[in-house]
Amino acid sequence: MSIEEVKYIEEVKNEMKLPGKVRIFDTTLRDGEQTPGVALTVDEKIGIAKKLDQLGVNIIEAGFPASSPGEKDAVKSIASLSLNANICGLARVLKKDLDEALACDVDYIHTFIGTSPIHRKYKLKMDKEEILQKAIFAVEYARDHGVKVEFSAEDATRTEFDYLLKIYKAVEDAGAHIINVPDTVGVMIPRAMEHLIRKLNENLKVPLSVHCHDDFGLAVANSLAAVEAGATQVHVTVNGLGERAGNAALEEVVMALIIHYGIPVDIETKKLVDISEFVSKITGVKMPPNKAIIGENAFAHEAGIHVHGVKEKAETYEPIKPEMVGHKRRIVLGKHTGTKAIKSKLEEYGIEMGDEQLRILYEQVKELGDKGKRVTDADLKAMAITILGRAPEEIVKLEGIAVMTGESVMPTATVKLRIKDKVKTAAKTGVGPVDAAINAIHSLVSETADIELEEYNIEAITGGTNALAEVFVVMSDKEGNKATGRSTREDIVMASVEAVLNAINKILTLK
Amino acid sequence: MSIEEVKYIEEVKNEMKLPGKVRIFDTTLRDGEQTPGVALTVDEKIGIAKKLDQLGVNIIEAGFPASSPGEKDAVKSIASLSLNANICGLARVLKKDLDEALACDVDYIHTFIGTSPIHRKYKLKMDKEEILQKAIFAVEYARDHGVKVEFSAEDATRTEFDYLLKIYKAVEDAGAHIINVPDTVGVMIPRAMEHLIRKLNENLKVPLSVHCHDDFGLAVANSLAAVEAGATQVHVTVNGLGERAGNAALEEVVMALIIHYGIPVDIETKKLVDISEFVSKITGVKMPPNKAIIGENAFAHEAGIHVHGVKEKAETYEPIKPEMVGHKRRIVLGKHTGTKAIKSKLEEYGIEMGDEQLRILYEQVKELGDKGKRVTDADLKAMAITILGRAPEEIVKLEGIAVMTGESVMPTATVKLRIKDKVKTAAKTGVGPVDAAINAIHSLVSETADIELEEYNIEAITGGTNALAEVFVVMSDKEGNKATGRSTREDIVMASVEAVLNAINKILTLK
Repeated sequence: MSIEEVKYIEEVKNEMKLPGKVRIFDTTLRDGEQTPGVALTVDEKIGIAKKLDQLGVNIIEAGFPASSPGEKDAVKSIASLSLNANICGLARVLKKDLDEALACDVDYIHTFIGTSPIHRKYKLKMDKEEILQKAIFAVEYARDHGVKVEFSAEDATRTEFDYLLKIYKAVEDAGAHIINVPDTVGVMIPRAMEHLIRKLNENLKVPLSVHCHDDFGLAVANSLAAVEAGATQVHVTVNGLGERAGNAALEEVVMALIIHYGIPVDIETKKLVDISEFVSKITGVKMPPNKAIIGENAFAHEAGIHVHGVKEKAETYEPIKPEMVGHKRRIVLGKHTGTKAIKSKLEEYGIEMGDEQLRILYEQVKELGDKGKRVTDADLKAMAITILGRAPEEIVKLEGIAVMTGESVMPTATVKLRIKDKVKTAAKTGVGPVDAAINAIHSLVSETADIELEEYNIEAITGGTNALAEVFVVMSDKEGNKATGRSTREDIVMASVEAVLNAINKILTLK
Repeated sequence: MSIEEVKYIEEVKNEMKLPGKVRIFDTTLRDGEQTPGVALTVDEKIGIAKKLDQLGVNIIEAGFPASSPGEKDAVKSIASLSLNANICGLARVLKKDLDEALACDVDYIHTFIGTSPIHRKYKLKMDKEEILQKAIFAVEYARDHGVKVEFSAEDATRTEFDYLLKIYKAVEDAGAHIINVPDTVGVMIPRAMEHLIRKLNENLKVPLSVHCHDDFGLAVANSLAAVEAGATQVHVTVNGLGERAGNAALEEVVMALIIHYGIPVDIETKKLVDISEFVSKITGVKMPPNKAIIGENAFAHEAGIHVHGVKEKAETYEPIKPEMVGHKRRIVLGKHTGTKAIKSKLEEYGIEMGDEQLRILYEQVKELGDKGKRVTDADLKAMAITILGRAPEEIVKLEGIAVMTGESVMPTATVKLRIKDKVKTAAKTGVGPVDAAINAIHSLVSETADIELEEYNIEAITGGTNALAEVFVVMSDKEGNKATGRSTREDIVMASVEAVLNAINKILTLK
């Protein structure tokens, strides 16, 4: 795939100083882990490091060893894995920090100090000369210990150019292998970034790297602008994790470099969706459906809008093939969906309907759409089966349930289910009565199919304790089948159980 | 606030053809609603339109009237609200579509047809001349009916320049008020967008608008690049909703225009977080914490990382003040949080705690952390209030409780309370376990004071079945004394009991 139709990009390429290759410096484990609310165990970090290495990133910033013993442990463990990527440890320009990093047996040190007026005055309380000397010391010290050295002038984009260049020249002379330009507070725009990197590039011999934050949604564009001016390395994180609005997203930077600029990177792009989901699961930071490249909707089309064009020729509404990033095209049902799309969807499941039945189903889909309800494939199938006059198969049927909770009582649920022809019973505990009941159901159903709860929502209840509670769940199995379940009752525990069984039966019906 | 420290932006401004003002064309209700899986009711659309108008957007694209009767209804209803914003209807270059839009009494029509080779060949199956004639017809027809007309060449960025300019010149001559350049498949980079808009601007007299998709995470940067070349209008959606990876995010475009370019827009930026949350709730599309401007973490700092710098001078790690966008700075509790940090956090909310209470809270925070749960500000505050609410005189004290429910079990609760010095027990049934428990408490307390439940609220719970549930109650007695009670726990039944007892104790303390 290429986007050769975009002549406008070709027309401006002569204005750029594009490098022959760009190296990907991943800082998911360092800046990414500084995402407020995210904390990873050593094992989780090792798992991510292995995935990053398989993906093909060139440098893995594994952590900030001086920050805590746990962090040091993680960096040391990752450095001992013998991965292809360089393993980098972060260090302030302090001997103590550098020693801690070196003690982890890393082969790459990223050392930094703030250089902007605001950082000098309020954070460091140091003058220009003092900062300069510390930077030189750190680069020489690391260099003398035989590791690759990258130097960052923190908050470079708010630093006076003359001073910035002076410090960069000094660390170049001190032996730094690469110089990084961090847009620490995310204040740049692409044109200004290109301008700054170009001026630095004209005055320095070492390769330049860039580290952008996304406070105004410009981290990716600013990183690419730096490459246009000759930067040969980009700092990224999976899913754009990081402090505040995060860093430049690995998946977006990589795909733009390949597709828009035609610059080689060592990344196996087919693994992008997989690593995004992996990191999302481990960190608990979910990406929205409209996230570029890896979002659930990145290659989704609502039936009735562009589906005709996409079926005729995918490129009408897709910039790249989803397979290229390990994604899949999805045709989603909605209120714009016509009978044709519904019919072809049902055919996938081997369901045939007459025109009148199809019309009824079509009306129901539209009605749900107008009410703002989602219609999954499993929902559609359940609705079709109802119309066809077959009772929706109750593959799993509730035969009995008893739930209890209290002050010194562990919330416990006993559930009796008929699954196909067998009656089974299980008792489970949970953090509350609903959790206990769902745990018991899960333990029984898991023998038949591995169906997980993805979302659990109770609509806000206002009124008395006898008001109706509406529970809405989304469940999925390993094959990616999804179904929604919904129930409205006065008893919140029973409403939850019904909603979950409803969704489970829809998924099992697909099998 | 300004970012005057960023001299690098000032240095490139002379290369730009910045307009004196930029108009915000919001298409949350049209392109945003085409987000796969999102469907809004007429009432929900009206709600969003009102909020957009209060925010100050210049044009609201309310929908695509020809697509369905429900859509037409929504556009008509919004057009009748007499909002300050122009109300726009989308229409293909077909008489039928234009008539449907005009029938909604809109004062603005956005009409479009595909122009790129791929759209001509595979989607439209029309030649260049046919498309040109249809475009002219549509613009003249709309213009003749007295509305403002905006024309879009769909997939403009993949259209040959000569043909694109020809069609734009033709619709300009036909009376189009504004010409829009859609990057329909999100294939542009900022430098190429600037180049294209500049070339168009040099050859056209009407104002230019831009409509960017985010397939490579560049929608905002491409929109801003168009403004650098003189575009005076930008299409945006709240939260960047839209097909596939979505559109340019309103909140990011607006803040960059104001902060980076110093260009006036009519937006009340203090309302940005509010409208983002409103749209997120209605569409069900949640934004990640690391979303720029409006994300939960956009102005969050983890305790122990940059908090010192931020407290000394916020600008060290914040590009703008959070209040400017209706956000709040958050110091987030993380893995190294001690009681001191918790104490200072509570002080922000005016909550004072004794050492013993603080120790209990600290243990609870730690326990949640060990379970891999995030502790948000709201969690901390709710937990603190629960602890504080329990500490004042416990006139009524829970000594024991057992609650049960099930399929053929009448929901039943047995409650043992110590009221002043007497221990009493009661068993009651209810429509659900919560109702039963509250009935039992009520029957015991009513012998001492006649306290009734006035309001019972469960905040919407989203997440797993083990998420924290927040219950809020209002209770009152015959003398008109009122008290609120609140409790946050994983067990919804126990949270309800605690909230009710909390409120009862407050009322009894008054006596």
